[in-house]
Amino acid sequence: MYPDSYPGLTLALARAADRRGEAPALIDGETVITWHAYRDRVARLAGALAGMGVQAGDRVAVLSPNTHRLLESLFAALWAGGVAVPLNHRLAAPELAAQANDCTPVVLVVDPAFRSVAETLRARVPSLRHIIVADDNYERLLTDAAPIPDQGARGDDTAFIIYTGGTTGRAKGVMLTHANLWANTANALAAVPLDGDSTHLHVAPLFHVAAIARAVSATVLGTTQVLLAKFDPAAVLAAIQQHRVVIVLLVPTMLRVVADLPGFHDYDTASLRMIAYGASPIDETLLRRLIKLFPHVALFQAYGMTELSPTATQLGPEHHVFDGPNAGRLRSAGRAAMLAEVRVVDDADVEQPTGAVGEIVVRGPTVMKGYWNQPEVTAHTLRGGWMHTGDLGYLDADGFLFLVDRKNDMIISGGENVHTTEVENAVASHPAVADCAVIGIPDPRWGQVVHAVIVPRPGETPDLAAIQAHCRALIAGYKIPRSLELRTAPLPLSGANKVLKSKLREEWAARAVSPSR
Amino acid sequence: MYPDSYPGLTLALARAADRRGEAPALIDGETVITWHAYRDRVARLAGALAGMGVQAGDRVAVLSPNTHRLLESLFAALWAGGVAVPLNHRLAAPELAAQANDCTPVVLVVDPAFRSVAETLRARVPSLRHIIVADDNYERLLTDAAPIPDQGARGDDTAFIIYTGGTTGRAKGVMLTHANLWANTANALAAVPLDGDSTHLHVAPLFHVAAIARAVSATVLGTTQVLLAKFDPAAVLAAIQQHRVVIVLLVPTMLRVVADLPGFHDYDTASLRMIAYGASPIDETLLRRLIKLFPHVALFQAYGMTELSPTATQLGPEHHVFDGPNAGRLRSAGRAAMLAEVRVVDDADVEQPTGAVGEIVVRGPTVMKGYWNQPEVTAHTLRGGWMHTGDLGYLDADGFLFLVDRKNDMIISGGENVHTTEVENAVASHPAVADCAVIGIPDPRWGQVVHAVIVPRPGETPDLAAIQAHCRALIAGYKIPRSLELRTAPLPLSGANKVLKSKLREEWAARAVSPSR
Repeated sequence: MYPDSYPGLTLALARAADRRGEAPALIDGETVITWHAYRDRVARLAGALAGMGVQAGDRVAVLSPNTHRLLESLFAALWAGGVAVPLNHRLAAPELAAQANDCTPVVLVVDPAFRSVAETLRARVPSLRHIIVADDNYERLLTDAAPIPDQGARGDDTAFIIYTGGTTGRAKGVMLTHANLWANTANALAAVPLDGDSTHLHVAPLFHVAAIARAVSATVLGTTQVLLAKFDPAAVLAAIQQHRVVIVLLVPTMLRVVADLPGFHDYDTASLRMIAYGASPIDETLLRRLIKLFPHVALFQAYGMTELSPTATQLGPEHHVFDGPNAGRLRSAGRAAMLAEVRVVDDADVEQPTGAVGEIVVRGPTVMKGYWNQPEVTAHTLRGGWMHTGDLGYLDADGFLFLVDRKNDMIISGGENVHTTEVENAVASHPAVADCAVIGIPDPRWGQVVHAVIVPRPGETPDLAAIQAHCRALIAGYKIPRSLELRTAPLPLSGANKVLKSKLREEWAARAVSPSR
Repeated sequence: MYPDSYPGLTLALARAADRRGEAPALIDGETVITWHAYRDRVARLAGALAGMGVQAGDRVAVLSPNTHRLLESLFAALWAGGVAVPLNHRLAAPELAAQANDCTPVVLVVDPAFRSVAETLRARVPSLRHIIVADDNYERLLTDAAPIPDQGARGDDTAFIIYTGGTTGRAKGVMLTHANLWANTANALAAVPLDGDSTHLHVAPLFHVAAIARAVSATVLGTTQVLLAKFDPAAVLAAIQQHRVVIVLLVPTMLRVVADLPGFHDYDTASLRMIAYGASPIDETLLRRLIKLFPHVALFQAYGMTELSPTATQLGPEHHVFDGPNAGRLRSAGRAAMLAEVRVVDDADVEQPTGAVGEIVVRGPTVMKGYWNQPEVTAHTLRGGWMHTGDLGYLDADGFLFLVDRKNDMIISGGENVHTTEVENAVASHPAVADCAVIGIPDPRWGQVVHAVIVPRPGETPDLAAIQAHCRALIAGYKIPRSLELRTAPLPLSGANKVLKSKLREEWAARAVSPSR
């Protein structure tokens, strides 16, 4: 009986309003929205959306930093029976127009900061019938609209379309169902026992599935959610202090900046019990500092991707240690979540033995419904019932997953596989290097050779010979960079804070064909 | 993608073996089985079952008190791709034969205590090709068998057929899928944060879904499970002390006996953190005693039934209180579990307003696949996508469910509905009454009238006039019993410890047609 038996995610909102009605649901600057008010505002906005023609399955796009109106808009889309499309506000207008023309939303809710982008979208996206600017207009709309009952979307229905940052190729609209997010919530609850008093801080942007999934879990638990519109280390610490935040999701890059803040000790972070992080493993130096700065805080890593709602593997607090039987897992991405099956396969989808590198594939109820309007890519990605992540890695004997590369980023040089992460670790350990990325560039003899893009530390200009000499002690000869370029600008990052290697390859190619640039 | 995306429950066993391998999984008297050994024994028994012809979807019946071999057999049936059928060993041989001939198992695993019943079944159940006696023969079988890989049953497949105790009518084989039990596990995890160190005591019989569901949750978490073959209050307390038990599932009747044990204070129960109970609400007197006896223990009530895997509503520790804003819920069955939708409807399936009594219906991923071989009863029970529980109750304004009766037990007297629970509470409060049940008996004038079956306290013989006088102060006139019978034997109970009113009605009818008996 179960295919359509999962309820819609809006049930969680309705329950939280019933059970924790006058407790704060959303705190956004000076604005505090109770669970009662949150449900009422969502039901009113859904009424307004219905009045604008939004019907079951219609898309409602939202372009906004983290605000209470962003979360209200996402849930209102679901309440109206529609599909919420949280757009990445870091993208340029043409990129957003391409995504909007792919999923053809009826309505766009836009933060006033992106009003000009919205005008571009109005001109370029014929499906858009209404644009709601999330300022006083939005409030007037809510006042005027009549609340409607939950329109009854259920587990099987698409809840979100989220465009993947996509380190390679055309952006894809990942369809996640209500049931996908329920399953991810179950995985989270099994790994991290939390209750309704575990106040959550949203600072990672809510157009990412990781933050959306946290918002869903918080709604299921009925916990207060504090919203920060942008990342600022002092604001993060101030919010933790002011609102007695219990759990926060960050990426290691953000964690480093927080730890580096000169005034760190001026803030009271005693309420914090868990830092969840993703996107990349944490390095030992940073971890040691975090343990000193937050001695009472558990660290929790999740690995996954949009297509997995998003969590596939989890590294729990018990493995964030340097000694004892649980040590030695810090460079791993942890072990499979409760409902996820994780395997490593070769190009013929044959399961690989322990320790052998291959593509990571995942099966389970958190696997997306598919890519919007891309049935062939969907079928290919989900072939054999497994989601093919495009990430390369291996499993150790205890089931810990170690990532070695993006499949598309792997370099094949003279028939040898070169995993760029390994080379990057070697290059980055040179004292003159602040940051680096490694790509493969075409070579008539070797097929590809290793090329390093290096951001030097201030005042340093490391040369190829120095880098090569440094690497020689660390990695095999065929892995050592054959060429390098220095750049002062930071490495280009995807919305998920992964280095956009496709961009680096494009830049290299552009220079290669027009050397004068 | 999700209909077949849920894994089989055996994944939980394999994971627990990978992650907690040398920790004790099962403790049964002097026998301690580690998770490694548990998986190995299950894989071997599955190999033996396969050798006996068990194929995907085939039924394997198990007739046993709580032993490690019972749990091994259930999981081995799943590991072999089959369906586990835990039989109620309190039933008589003809009842068991009827159930077995309904679901036609290929193999029966039987505890040596039920060897003679097994011989009857061998003679009467043609589908049975093999009977495995769970003694040394079982161990030899495991030694001789080659372990087989998990045969890959998945979420949609039936995992268990469990015959409902059935307070009325023919027993029904409830089909629960692997996904049903995963959903119930998610509901449990959301309500009760537990971890892998929360040692569990099985004393409620493992042919009930409530205990099976706990065994599944314990397997997911990798917690040690201590097994007691029968209920004995001293043995319960001794097991808690010896094995540092953290959680135990009991019914209120058992709790009362434990609390009454003269030597209670000789046992160290400091490890216990939670008592989960079901089958009926707990009365205030007992609760006050439990709070005094177990000051450090949280109490947790679940309401549900086999068809719901089993939990529909939960009453958490925060509502087991006498004062403050959370008081006043103790007579309720709590609120809907995370993934369960609970409504009260009339006979036309129209949702009833707050406070109005009607049939309790439930929707969600824990709702059974159906009744084995009974498509019409299934369709009727699941009409409109809702499981019709047959229980009568109402929801209060805060979503707490109050049970008032079994639908089939409700008495209609002179057009008035009489909920027997209310009458029973009134009668039971008479000082001469030890226990009582109320049924409707035919009456030419009123359709039905109220009849009380009373077990008096030792030395007491309450008469009708006394009971009526007592009730007059408590309930409306039409609810007062018009007749009564005294019995010295305890009231007949179903396997789920509910009074078998159908039996009382039958007994009354037998006396009515043959007054000489």
